[in-house]
Amino acid sequence: MLLERWQQIPPGMRDLLPDETARVRAVSDRILRQMARWGYREVTTPTLEYLEVLVHGEGAGAGDRLFKLVDRRGEVLALRPEMTTPVARLVATRLAGEPLPMRLAYAGQVFRGGESGSGRLREFPQVGCELIGSRTPEADAEIVALAVESLAAAGLEQFSVSLGHVGFLREILAGLRLPEEEEAAVRALLYQKDFVGLRSLLEGHRAEPKSVRALLALPALRGPAAITEARRLVDTPDGQNVVRDLSELQGMLDAYGVGGAVTVDLSIIRDFDYYTGIVFEGHTTALGLPLLGGGRYDRLVGRFGAGQPATGFAVRVERVLASGGAGKDTWAPDAVVAFADGGRDAALACARDLRARALVVAVDVLDRPWEDVARDALARGAGCAILVRGRSAVVRDSDGEREVTVADLGSLGPVRGGASWRP
Amino acid sequence: MLLERWQQIPPGMRDLLPDETARVRAVSDRILRQMARWGYREVTTPTLEYLEVLVHGEGAGAGDRLFKLVDRRGEVLALRPEMTTPVARLVATRLAGEPLPMRLAYAGQVFRGGESGSGRLREFPQVGCELIGSRTPEADAEIVALAVESLAAAGLEQFSVSLGHVGFLREILAGLRLPEEEEAAVRALLYQKDFVGLRSLLEGHRAEPKSVRALLALPALRGPAAITEARRLVDTPDGQNVVRDLSELQGMLDAYGVGGAVTVDLSIIRDFDYYTGIVFEGHTTALGLPLLGGGRYDRLVGRFGAGQPATGFAVRVERVLASGGAGKDTWAPDAVVAFADGGRDAALACARDLRARALVVAVDVLDRPWEDVARDALARGAGCAILVRGRSAVVRDSDGEREVTVADLGSLGPVRGGASWRP
Repeated sequence: MLLERWQQIPPGMRDLLPDETARVRAVSDRILRQMARWGYREVTTPTLEYLEVLVHGEGAGAGDRLFKLVDRRGEVLALRPEMTTPVARLVATRLAGEPLPMRLAYAGQVFRGGESGSGRLREFPQVGCELIGSRTPEADAEIVALAVESLAAAGLEQFSVSLGHVGFLREILAGLRLPEEEEAAVRALLYQKDFVGLRSLLEGHRAEPKSVRALLALPALRGPAAITEARRLVDTPDGQNVVRDLSELQGMLDAYGVGGAVTVDLSIIRDFDYYTGIVFEGHTTALGLPLLGGGRYDRLVGRFGAGQPATGFAVRVERVLASGGAGKDTWAPDAVVAFADGGRDAALACARDLRARALVVAVDVLDRPWEDVARDALARGAGCAILVRGRSAVVRDSDGEREVTVADLGSLGPVRGGASWRP
Repeated sequence: MLLERWQQIPPGMRDLLPDETARVRAVSDRILRQMARWGYREVTTPTLEYLEVLVHGEGAGAGDRLFKLVDRRGEVLALRPEMTTPVARLVATRLAGEPLPMRLAYAGQVFRGGESGSGRLREFPQVGCELIGSRTPEADAEIVALAVESLAAAGLEQFSVSLGHVGFLREILAGLRLPEEEEAAVRALLYQKDFVGLRSLLEGHRAEPKSVRALLALPALRGPAAITEARRLVDTPDGQNVVRDLSELQGMLDAYGVGGAVTVDLSIIRDFDYYTGIVFEGHTTALGLPLLGGGRYDRLVGRFGAGQPATGFAVRVERVLASGGAGKDTWAPDAVVAFADGGRDAALACARDLRARALVVAVDVLDRPWEDVARDALARGAGCAILVRGRSAVVRDSDGEREVTVADLGSLGPVRGGASWRP
């Protein structure tokens, strides 16, 4: 069937049916509950921000991938592409002066303009958190550990978090002394993990050989030996500090009991420019794209007012689902209630009583024969169908049909759970 | 302090701090839970729709109050101003052919362009539901009863739902035989409940006097006598049918136990054009604006594909809050954990164990003296502050400070609830 434009949704956006929506909500709620247990409290910011806020936060280049619109007053607004910048604005303005540290969480839709090729979404839900006001490695450890615990809470069993640091790459790039344009090209190749392209770009280049060697060694800087190897490759004081911090972080992640899920990977490049320290990503083997991403961003809040060091991460809920998070959703009402022969008011009252006992009850509203109601209810997986006729009622479940009194229906205890429930 | 543009949010939009966000989430979750109990399952549609979808659904005039934007491909998108039209599109396309009735719920942000004067919001959260596929009065009764139960579930004690019918007004207006333009003016005055303006518009008009009388009597058509009075005023067959349906509806609402919260009000005009039958609004005395609105719309789904009768409503979450729904949010961690003298890893492990027992635990990440940590924790309402030093620990709560072993901290049962918890 060819659909008209007014029957379609824009590319890169999705309608979610009940089972999918239930799974999205389950993942999002479980992660927020985990964050709450660590002291993080949810805040809400507008879906639309002034373009200035988003550009100011992220620096040049942010504009390209934004959905922009012009307000009735001629002001340019944009749909938020992520939540860290709006939260930084909030922290620097309405929350300025609140006691530190602040632990903030969020859950909402974010938007990416531009092309939606190869299944890339242009609207998707994000859940995340930010720890504001601490420069300590303990703060970074908390955020990485909470990232691991969030994926576990979402129902994932097989996943890993890769941990890097923008300072390490910065040291190598400084050593290369490349012109700005070529440095951007190197970063782009690293972001795409295109080490073949990287090698051919640097081959025959006059850059300092030790730094070239360190850069080309990046993909190998993963796993248990990465820190020792990194210490050898970059011997500047800043480079050594980065390595020492990562090593200390690993110790704390072990104390949190999540060390086994975290791998050092010094080749990570994140797609936002505001990171200043550790950066990390969550992965599963089921999916080629990160499930979560985050890191330290000590200068972003200061761009909006009084500066604060900060660290945090965001989870891509739909990718957690694609990796098997939240399992399957199975749903059916406990009972479908119908009526005949003057039993209407008694049927409605019966539905009310069963709901008050926390059962899921649908009333038949199609004015059709009992046979149709009962067959349809059981086909949809309902625990039972109930026909109320005056003071008597008929109950049909998978065992067949039997007569009961309306009073019997009303005397149910607070039982729950589909087919296991028996009036 | 004068704020720069990049520190502000657009007019008519809001940042919500943790307490406010917690209340919004509580109201929204409670209403969704109530709807789930009646068999309604949540669906999700994109925040952005093709402009054609929204205009097609609502008819001419919808465009005025939309936030529109032009996609990279030159297509015009708009932020949804409500959820019934997107759900109708979904029902007529991807959900076409699913067994009827469909009971669908939704919760999401909606947007209204145009001016934001007098505190009018341009973005706000809506929670609602739609019952698709039934033309019966039982379906309308279910929706009105669920509207009442939703406001009750949200925590409101004092509220009322006014119930009208677009067919009644349609009969009166047909009797007036006004030119299209004047009929629109009459509708606008009714929407604003400007009966003085209405009287002066119709005074000296050549319209049929019986219909003028009926129209001017509308504000009086409220409360228990409204149905009897309406039966007398509009004696066309369609008018009598409307009155009969409303009367039958009242009987069912009594059976549902919600009759006391519902008042007939035949002057209601809703702000969307798609209604074809009953219409209703929820009010509290605390607020001049409706907390919820809904009604029957039997033609909307058919505009997007195979037609289906439908009835539903949407709740304005922020107005429920303004009327006292969800009460106050009080929050504090159960424990704040700090460390000294080599106790770091033990402290992190302790935090992990307490969280596994469902306690809310914040770890101190500011690297500051114990005295500061403990004072700050208790000032913020935490149940206690814990200092871990090697194998021993200090606990401070409102009763003072005492020494315990780290093992004591670990042997806690699954207790919950701020100051009542005692290691």
